[in-house]
Amino acid sequence: MKSILALGTDEQINKWIPLAKKFFIIGTYAQTELGHGSNLRGLETTATFDVATQEFILNTPTFSAMKWWPGDLGRTATHAVVFAQLYLKGHCYGMHPFIVQIRSLRDHSPSQGITLGDIGPKMGFENVDNGFLILKNVRVPRENMLAKFSQVLPDGQYKKQGSEKINYLTMIVVRVNILQSSIIPCLMKACTIAIRYSVVRRQSELKPGDPEVKILDYQTQQQKLFPQLATAYAFHFTCNYLLETFHRCYNQTQEGKFDLLPELHALAAGIKVITTDYCSAGVEVCRRACGGHGYSLLSGLPSIYVKVVPSCTYEGENTVLLLQTARFLVKCYGMAQMGQPLPSSVAYFSSVNFGKCQAQEEKDFLNPDIYTDAYKHRAFRLIRNAAMKLQQLVQAGKTQHEAWNQCTVQLTRAAMAHSHYIVVQKFTEELKNHAKESAIQRVLKNLCDLFALHGIFSNAGDFMQDAYFSTEQIDRVTETYLDLLAVIRRDAVPLVDAFDFSDACLNSALGSYDGHVYQRLYEWAKKSPTNHQDDRVFKTYLKPLFQNALSKL
Amino acid sequence: MKSILALGTDEQINKWIPLAKKFFIIGTYAQTELGHGSNLRGLETTATFDVATQEFILNTPTFSAMKWWPGDLGRTATHAVVFAQLYLKGHCYGMHPFIVQIRSLRDHSPSQGITLGDIGPKMGFENVDNGFLILKNVRVPRENMLAKFSQVLPDGQYKKQGSEKINYLTMIVVRVNILQSSIIPCLMKACTIAIRYSVVRRQSELKPGDPEVKILDYQTQQQKLFPQLATAYAFHFTCNYLLETFHRCYNQTQEGKFDLLPELHALAAGIKVITTDYCSAGVEVCRRACGGHGYSLLSGLPSIYVKVVPSCTYEGENTVLLLQTARFLVKCYGMAQMGQPLPSSVAYFSSVNFGKCQAQEEKDFLNPDIYTDAYKHRAFRLIRNAAMKLQQLVQAGKTQHEAWNQCTVQLTRAAMAHSHYIVVQKFTEELKNHAKESAIQRVLKNLCDLFALHGIFSNAGDFMQDAYFSTEQIDRVTETYLDLLAVIRRDAVPLVDAFDFSDACLNSALGSYDGHVYQRLYEWAKKSPTNHQDDRVFKTYLKPLFQNALSKL
Repeated sequence: MKSILALGTDEQINKWIPLAKKFFIIGTYAQTELGHGSNLRGLETTATFDVATQEFILNTPTFSAMKWWPGDLGRTATHAVVFAQLYLKGHCYGMHPFIVQIRSLRDHSPSQGITLGDIGPKMGFENVDNGFLILKNVRVPRENMLAKFSQVLPDGQYKKQGSEKINYLTMIVVRVNILQSSIIPCLMKACTIAIRYSVVRRQSELKPGDPEVKILDYQTQQQKLFPQLATAYAFHFTCNYLLETFHRCYNQTQEGKFDLLPELHALAAGIKVITTDYCSAGVEVCRRACGGHGYSLLSGLPSIYVKVVPSCTYEGENTVLLLQTARFLVKCYGMAQMGQPLPSSVAYFSSVNFGKCQAQEEKDFLNPDIYTDAYKHRAFRLIRNAAMKLQQLVQAGKTQHEAWNQCTVQLTRAAMAHSHYIVVQKFTEELKNHAKESAIQRVLKNLCDLFALHGIFSNAGDFMQDAYFSTEQIDRVTETYLDLLAVIRRDAVPLVDAFDFSDACLNSALGSYDGHVYQRLYEWAKKSPTNHQDDRVFKTYLKPLFQNALSKL
Repeated sequence: MKSILALGTDEQINKWIPLAKKFFIIGTYAQTELGHGSNLRGLETTATFDVATQEFILNTPTFSAMKWWPGDLGRTATHAVVFAQLYLKGHCYGMHPFIVQIRSLRDHSPSQGITLGDIGPKMGFENVDNGFLILKNVRVPRENMLAKFSQVLPDGQYKKQGSEKINYLTMIVVRVNILQSSIIPCLMKACTIAIRYSVVRRQSELKPGDPEVKILDYQTQQQKLFPQLATAYAFHFTCNYLLETFHRCYNQTQEGKFDLLPELHALAAGIKVITTDYCSAGVEVCRRACGGHGYSLLSGLPSIYVKVVPSCTYEGENTVLLLQTARFLVKCYGMAQMGQPLPSSVAYFSSVNFGKCQAQEEKDFLNPDIYTDAYKHRAFRLIRNAAMKLQQLVQAGKTQHEAWNQCTVQLTRAAMAHSHYIVVQKFTEELKNHAKESAIQRVLKNLCDLFALHGIFSNAGDFMQDAYFSTEQIDRVTETYLDLLAVIRRDAVPLVDAFDFSDACLNSALGSYDGHVYQRLYEWAKKSPTNHQDDRVFKTYLKPLFQNALSKL
């Protein structure tokens, strides 16, 4: 239904929405094909207009063209918005959306020319209905093409109308919503479970004869979990910023101005990637930090992992999105070279410190200006190097496309470094919002420092390029970072309690508020269906063997 | 049964093995407890000797002491080798193994004082029986303590005998076997599936108007998959080396010499960690590189991931093992400082190049001497720095244990860098074995170069310390590495075919030899049980809604 609202004319909306409510129409968005995901222009499904009958004839011309993955398609939906290449008088006009009834409203049987079903078992979408759809000469009336942006006239003429650019906004708002309502909370939950568990679990003594130590007191455990905690807070603030930018941009489009859209698109793509990538990795770190119990489904952690990780692929595959961000960055680099004004998210291009980092002592590295400058330098240098290599390859005779392909590894790294800078920078800005709450500010500052220094520690090579950081400085960053772990240890439990997840929401034997880990694991395990089966397995397989053995007595 | 062979006296072996065969005894190895895994000394189960009855009384004194995880325990085993703290006349003698009958051989009911069951659902062990076990005053005769290394005499006296060191060998051979028979093949299978799929899948055109490109021709896809391919080959050779070392060591122990054991233990621990860590990460990279289809269980990839990843935790948790390797390395560093002779795996401490890397051109970076020297420098520097920090903290008044804890992040990195060096070094040695097969040698050389340069590219900071590599050199490494991707592209498919997995063994719709990806996905999906259910769901939930809607007509 959302597709109709976004892609339909007012007339179509006024027709279909009441119809959908009245007849309990269940819709699906049928875009992805078996052989085509990220490259929408490559979709193969066809819709050919038949002037004689005023109908579109939809077909799945090849195996790889069948629709594959759409939600609710396999066992539920009655109607689909099918994306297909529009053919008018033998000429292809590209991808357009068509409303197709795929199942009967009386008995749910597939409509004429429709073959459909479930795509089989999946990791992380166990209970989700994802289906396939094959169309064979399926006819729909001319009015079923969603025509907000283009229309086919009765005589088969093609007519464009409105601006499709506004569509970007839908895509972006979907991405921001997923990050905020699902992906970042996944990391927050995993941190809550792992950190609470790590103050219950004890292992070995630090001093012989002492009681066993809470595992959260081990530096290695802190080094696993605290960067994830800082990351969860960091992304929370980044997402707020993205949403503000979105609203600013949306308001402009309402006044007919679309010039912020490319920047918003590049920004949202980069932030989607770094968030989904770090959250997926972070949840897995938390899971493994719980040792054997992290493999138990009763810990809640495996199900969080399979929930978070598909976000690296859906709503824009991460590598594809990074390259979109990179394309924008390379363009902006060119603008900067020509002295043109820069969009605000890349305005830092003109304030990069090309010298060396001046920090000496530990306290210098805890100065947000010092580390944001370092992130700035790293991002800009990676963007500049990729852009220059691209230029050189073209000058050396490569085609634009070959040259681009040969730079893509470096371009994705540059886009990631740029997004990383944004996250650090927005976190430092957030600190200013708490100037009047010194206790909160102090704790957030520790997290911000940790996030930033952990990033330098983990990507030291990038920061040492051009000798921006010396070996001695990197060693100092490492020590400062490790010292921070012990500082954050004190606030770690309250910092996850602050996420305020109920026990029911966490659904974890390891992570509940009261810390009764072992009792809960045992109680929950006892409830497992495997403990309430009849003795069929014993009777069928084991008993005959035992009886046979006993008969030898 | 294996435990009895390893831990029992000849008399016990001669008694129990025939008994086990005759009565179809199914054994389980009950070591891990709900609250204790890696720290065996911390296990809480007790076995108290009762001189009057010549029995041990076994108890689970706390919640966290119940046995948790043992295989076959939850629903199958009849006997367990239970590890418990031995108490004699109120004094604890540490962990010992006891044979306990846990279920009746007649009706499979739990024995007197035994409570047991299944520990509930797990990630990656779906069909494995893992159980819990609570012991309440369970009595077993004195002879049931496995007594190869220590014995309790009838009067309650404790008597040690033989050397437990030999036990290390069992642990190590188990680890090597798992790597070779399960973990490395997991990465090989994932590479096979992802690389074969990537020459079938096409996406976008490089030149407008051209047909869509095989995704393996994209640099970003090559950068995801080829390092995994090189890693699979690298570990294959490392494992051979580990096995050779094991056999050399084993032969020495047969002559009563145990001095190679600590080195073998440290080596095997480090290689276990780097192999399981890289293989787990690599399988996930391969899975995600297959886009949406990598989430389909029909791809075979999710099940490979859940099979490989628990190896980071079982048979020695990776952080714990790295610290064991690190302890050996720090000790060896001390020996090197005092001019003592070094074990062979750390002999390189005395040949580290403390100057700068001399490589200039691309071909220099393809020289195995150049890059093994770089790995050597990196490992040694990290070991030295960690050892020096440890020393300084102790000199500054910290206890050994506090100081150790504050160095553990750096110690684990050092142990990882050492293991990484071993893998690179053994790969370059392997090349020499193929001096007479120049075609094979050339291909393996490319893989070895790629493995080594990818490691430098991914950990550039480590290699730039002390200015060993300059910014210009690191940039050159990056270019050399990226150029290699295009070289390996030519051999990528034969290199995975060479693993020689049958289609049945891969069990993947994406990875079969004939490349019929889409047809197979469709055929397998159609067979999914979800496509052969009755229309219960429709009838129960949807039909009433539709009927209600239609009645409004």
